[in-house]
Amino acid sequence: MTGRRGTPSAGSLQSAAAAAVDAERLRHGFEELAAIGALAGGGCERLAFTAEEREAHARFQELAAEAGLSVRSDEIGNSFARLTPADQADQAAAAPVPRAPLLSGSHLDTVSQAGCFDGAAGVVCALEAARAAGESLTAGGVPLRRAIEVVAWANEEGARFAPAMMGSGVYSGLISLENARNARDSDGVTVAQALGRPPGAATATAPVAGAAPAAYIELHAEQGTALERAGLHVAVVEGVQAQVAGSWTVRGRAAHAGTTAMDQRSDALLAASRIVEMVGDSAAAHPPGVGTVGSLFVSPGSRNSVPGEVRATLDFRHPEEAELTAMEEAFESKAVLIAERAGCEFSYLREWRAARVDFDAGLLSGLEAAAGAAGVKQMRLFSAAGHDAVQLARIGPAAMLFVPSRAGVSHHPDEYTPPAALEAGARVLAAALAALAAGP
Amino acid sequence: MTGRRGTPSAGSLQSAAAAAVDAERLRHGFEELAAIGALAGGGCERLAFTAEEREAHARFQELAAEAGLSVRSDEIGNSFARLTPADQADQAAAAPVPRAPLLSGSHLDTVSQAGCFDGAAGVVCALEAARAAGESLTAGGVPLRRAIEVVAWANEEGARFAPAMMGSGVYSGLISLENARNARDSDGVTVAQALGRPPGAATATAPVAGAAPAAYIELHAEQGTALERAGLHVAVVEGVQAQVAGSWTVRGRAAHAGTTAMDQRSDALLAASRIVEMVGDSAAAHPPGVGTVGSLFVSPGSRNSVPGEVRATLDFRHPEEAELTAMEEAFESKAVLIAERAGCEFSYLREWRAARVDFDAGLLSGLEAAAGAAGVKQMRLFSAAGHDAVQLARIGPAAMLFVPSRAGVSHHPDEYTPPAALEAGARVLAAALAALAAGP
Repeated sequence: MTGRRGTPSAGSLQSAAAAAVDAERLRHGFEELAAIGALAGGGCERLAFTAEEREAHARFQELAAEAGLSVRSDEIGNSFARLTPADQADQAAAAPVPRAPLLSGSHLDTVSQAGCFDGAAGVVCALEAARAAGESLTAGGVPLRRAIEVVAWANEEGARFAPAMMGSGVYSGLISLENARNARDSDGVTVAQALGRPPGAATATAPVAGAAPAAYIELHAEQGTALERAGLHVAVVEGVQAQVAGSWTVRGRAAHAGTTAMDQRSDALLAASRIVEMVGDSAAAHPPGVGTVGSLFVSPGSRNSVPGEVRATLDFRHPEEAELTAMEEAFESKAVLIAERAGCEFSYLREWRAARVDFDAGLLSGLEAAAGAAGVKQMRLFSAAGHDAVQLARIGPAAMLFVPSRAGVSHHPDEYTPPAALEAGARVLAAALAALAAGP
Repeated sequence: MTGRRGTPSAGSLQSAAAAAVDAERLRHGFEELAAIGALAGGGCERLAFTAEEREAHARFQELAAEAGLSVRSDEIGNSFARLTPADQADQAAAAPVPRAPLLSGSHLDTVSQAGCFDGAAGVVCALEAARAAGESLTAGGVPLRRAIEVVAWANEEGARFAPAMMGSGVYSGLISLENARNARDSDGVTVAQALGRPPGAATATAPVAGAAPAAYIELHAEQGTALERAGLHVAVVEGVQAQVAGSWTVRGRAAHAGTTAMDQRSDALLAASRIVEMVGDSAAAHPPGVGTVGSLFVSPGSRNSVPGEVRATLDFRHPEEAELTAMEEAFESKAVLIAERAGCEFSYLREWRAARVDFDAGLLSGLEAAAGAAGVKQMRLFSAAGHDAVQLARIGPAAMLFVPSRAGVSHHPDEYTPPAALEAGARVLAAALAALAAGP
């Protein structure tokens, strides 16, 4: 990249790669994926390892194969499409391939009732950026010194199978393949069962490679309002905030809704409701932290019965580790008291904690330089959401680009990123990949 | 009954019927039913029209048939067992049968994760009381002037199929047979499909008779603590409080749990939690009213998503109609404001309102006299729960007897009524049925 090589030719090489981004191909790729799992009222739903998510992987592989990339799936359902020197007939001087490849992409799964941008934008932009980088280098007679691999990770959301960021976690060696394949959804179906056989265009399912790439760059929708407020199309993402995921239960006593006087109840839902409120208050007291109870089940769950038990989730996030710890500790101690006052018992299980991640400084300044060469104005941001890049950052240099989310809407059918912003993101990505692929 | 006839022979006839109650037969009948749908940790689960509830009806019919009663099922799944003069070979002077029968019983279905007493106690006690009344009259040479019919109503709880009190509602003509048979559970199964064919001992499924009985007396567990606190085994129930059942929805905006700042959320669960608290406060402000949110669903319901919608139930009950109206009106107006403040929309649908019921005064004083003749001390109570007797009260004289619930626990595996209390209840019931059957 220009920042490292410091030669004028690197800048023009990046500009050429950015200019080679084809808005029509980008639009086509995006629309092909958005049609899969499309919801009647707009938006998409492709829960991990469902027919819809697998079809999206198959379509991604077909699009990449049509573009001349060689595709494969691995045993956890990640899809890869590789652009190698050998694929380019006129690259006689291509370097031998043992050099670690560049990796870029995101995920194709969604939560329930979701939008079509989220991770899919990053997969489509990476495919277009890889093509543009390859074409511009070829046109300029510059040898591709390492492969560019476009990746679609499996099960980033964790909405159907826990944990989240599963495909990239297995790839990065942070989750064992066996544990991942044995994970069960709420119907008891395992990942291995849901995966079945590999999707369409891949000739076979390969073992998970797990090799550290020379660099991993992920483009993703921001899912916040910073870019929109700044009127920009691209942000260079410095890191991801720390996060705690937990489950909690309130046990009261199921009782008849007609005959049990108000002062004789141990109503688990009443206690849980006060805990939900406390989570909101607690997050608001630790800005810019956020706290969410996203899932809550009541049992026995009949109109006639005072609720005897409530099971719910907890999600706390904060850029500062110490603040996150304080939020979680306060939650637990306050919830115990709230439950006690309602004659109930409270229990909490932390499911996982993800440390704050700081992306690779060299890669970040390289992305800034690529944006400059591509003529795209950018800003720095810190991510409020976890992404596959978090897993990749643990095994090698990783960084992210954000494109805007209209009104900050995410995980909802209304989520939207303007085509011009997707194009700008793809151009910065193409410039960065071209410089890295041609570099030492 | 003695109160009406005012003759000493009626009192001794009642005492004889009470004395004919067989504690061992009563225990046997109860245990036979409690074994059906028994839960591993104690308690029973026999949701309406499941295999377990149907098996309980079949077992009830077998027990009644073994006792010499003639059994039948009707098209909504109610089971009847009739003790007629013709069944008693030595009753040559029996009156012709067109006289309206006496009806006594309760229901065999339960809510989820329930106890074994609730309605089953009333069915078993009615069967034993009918036998004891018949046997004592026969032994005394007193003709049975009207049939005694023991009934097990279908779907009293409404936990699987709405509305509640379905079997008795169809019998009483308050619910059409067609509407009842077309009601669907949450899986889309209709009552007609779930009913399939009639249970065991009944030779055929008869049309719903719907004839007003000469009197309907239902024994049921109190589901409160008044009897236990008074140290008594039996209460004569004067009526049932008024009740409102509703559904409410909060619509917010689903959003990403990591990237959506706390002050940018329209969290439907946060608003719903405040509404749940308000329901509790509102009921506490109108003693002895009760208010319950028994069922609550969150969507999209994933850890990663700020809840976009919550659907929940409402149950308000109060002995005074005007107080109930005030509770419901306050709920609706306050909920609208709570939702608005959280950036959400609120909607409420009243599903039904059941008016306060006052049981038949003559029957109530007759039950008091029967208790006196049976040597069972009783108290008057007002019911906080709806029962099948509410439906029967709309077509003829109806009343209820309560037996105690230990610690007031109901709709829970721990619910318990001591054997001595069941026996006392059966004795009062036998005395009342004997007097009515021998009466004019």
